[in-house]
Amino acid sequence: MKIARITGSVTATQKDPKLSGLTLLIGDIEDGSGNVLEKSAVMADACSAGAGEYVLVVSGSSARIPAKTAGLPVDLVAIAIIDHIDIRAEAAPSSTSSRRKN
Amino acid sequence: MKIARITGSVTATQKDPKLSGLTLLIGDIEDGSGNVLEKSAVMADACSAGAGEYVLVVSGSSARIPAKTAGLPVDLVAIAIIDHIDIRAEAAPSSTSSRRKN
Amino acid sequence: MKIARITGSVTATQKDPKLSGLTLLIGDIEDGSGNVLEKSAVMADACSAGAGEYVLVVSGSSARIPAKTAGLPVDLVAIAIIDHIDIRAEAAPSSTSSRRKN
Amino acid sequence: MKIARITGSVTATQKDPKLSGLTLLIGDIEDGSGNVLEKSAVMADACSAGAGEYVLVVSGSSARIPAKTAGLPVDLVAIAIIDHIDIRAEAAPSSTSSRRKN
Amino acid sequence: MKIARITGSVTATQKDPKLSGLTLLIGDIEDGSGNVLEKSAVMADACSAGAGEYVLVVSGSSARIPAKTAGLPVDLVAIAIIDHIDIRAEAAPSSTSSRRKN
Repeated sequence: MKIARITGSVTATQKDPKLSGLTLLIGDIEDGSGNVLEKSAVMADACSAGAGEYVLVVSGSSARIPAKTAGLPVDLVAIAIIDHIDIRAEAAPSSTSSRRKN
Repeated sequence: MKIARITGSVTATQKDPKLSGLTLLIGDIEDGSGNVLEKSAVMADACSAGAGEYVLVVSGSSARIPAKTAGLPVDLVAIAIIDHIDIRAEAAPSSTSSRRKN
Repeated sequence: MKIARITGSVTATQKDPKLSGLTLLIGDIEDGSGNVLEKSAVMADACSAGAGEYVLVVSGSSARIPAKTAGLPVDLVAIAIIDHIDIRAEAAPSSTSSRRKN
Repeated sequence: MKIARITGSVTATQKDPKLSGLTLLIGDIEDGSGNVLEKSAVMADACSAGAGEYVLVVSGSSARIPAKTAGLPVDLVAIAIIDHIDIRAEAAPSSTSSRRKN
Repeated sequence: MKIARITGSVTATQKDPKLSGLTLLIGDIEDGSGNVLEKSAVMADACSAGAGEYVLVVSGSSARIPAKTAGLPVDLVAIAIIDHIDIRAEAAPSSTSSRRKN
């Protein structure tokens, strides 16, 4: 899954009928430090998120798993509003566990 | 889902029979500011879109969800013509919600 | 879907038995102007394509939809030989439809 | 599948109910030499991994295969803690097996 | 599908039970000329491949199609050992088939 910062919403009237009633948000996919990895990703809303909030997004066929998006033509959905991300100091990169065999 | 600007169409006569009668559009995947992210994406048309229009495209297995593409060999489909995209000022990047634990 | 130019074929004898009898082509994924986006993509053939031809390729689970690839371990298949691509002048980029709300 | 180094965890209270009780880890996708390929990937935990550990991650619909993630809206899951990676000297690149036919 | 050169293997003891007995190989995704496109891809073995060999890999849900990986949490599998790749001279890029309509 990825982190996205919601920047706004998308409106469309001429569309596949299955999208009727579904809120479409737009946002940027970011890494944990605020750097943008992918701009303008459009996602279905399944956690009542709004502009400025950080959400967790899931993609692919799993985007159709939440009750709100079951059976819908979506490939990205916001499934959670992120409270916080804990990065641990002991997770700093150490020597790799790769061993070379001759 | 992504934003695409339709630039034209693709014609093919020697093809898998399941594609018979399906309109194939070609377009560029763009971010919300008009920058091209991916050129020449070919998509099935499920919202009667035409050249010059901005559409919402869905990819992967979800591309087979619309009635028009059910059971077809497609991995990208235009599902909606975009009316407008609202970007909110309060969505400007603020300090991240990431907290480091020592 | 994407555009690919077929450059040749791949032969393999020690393989999953489900691949038996399936023609494997190799080609480059290109944009509509001949620029290579991805080299050496290997695809199953479902439209009797040959070296030098431009084909439409579909990826992911949809690659298993054509009769020729149903139930096979493939993630890319050539589903059509492209006759031509029509790019419309009126599709030239215009001002975006994005509106900023304060 | 890919190699990821776990850097921490993600907490979310307002979320799709299917995520209840699921541990969400965050980590960097790396190559076997410690170079980061993708930062801040969020994954479900299916092997009791913790910060600093190297795990194997699986993506897409296969992320819903482990018992812990069956039926959940996830597209990335840590399925194994890596003990070691053995790189063989005889695997050094040699002349290609590609032959050109005129 | 893609071409990969096997460089070694991965060992993991604390893992999802469904991975028990499955050989995990590691390799680099290459184009047909030996250039590395993606390092350190981990794949299930379904064709008895070993270090130094060139294999065909399939990704996504299709990675669960071979008998050896059916129902397993894998998104990449080696399905064939490549004998040779034939690149045809007549496949050299020619003028595009794209026509612009005014």
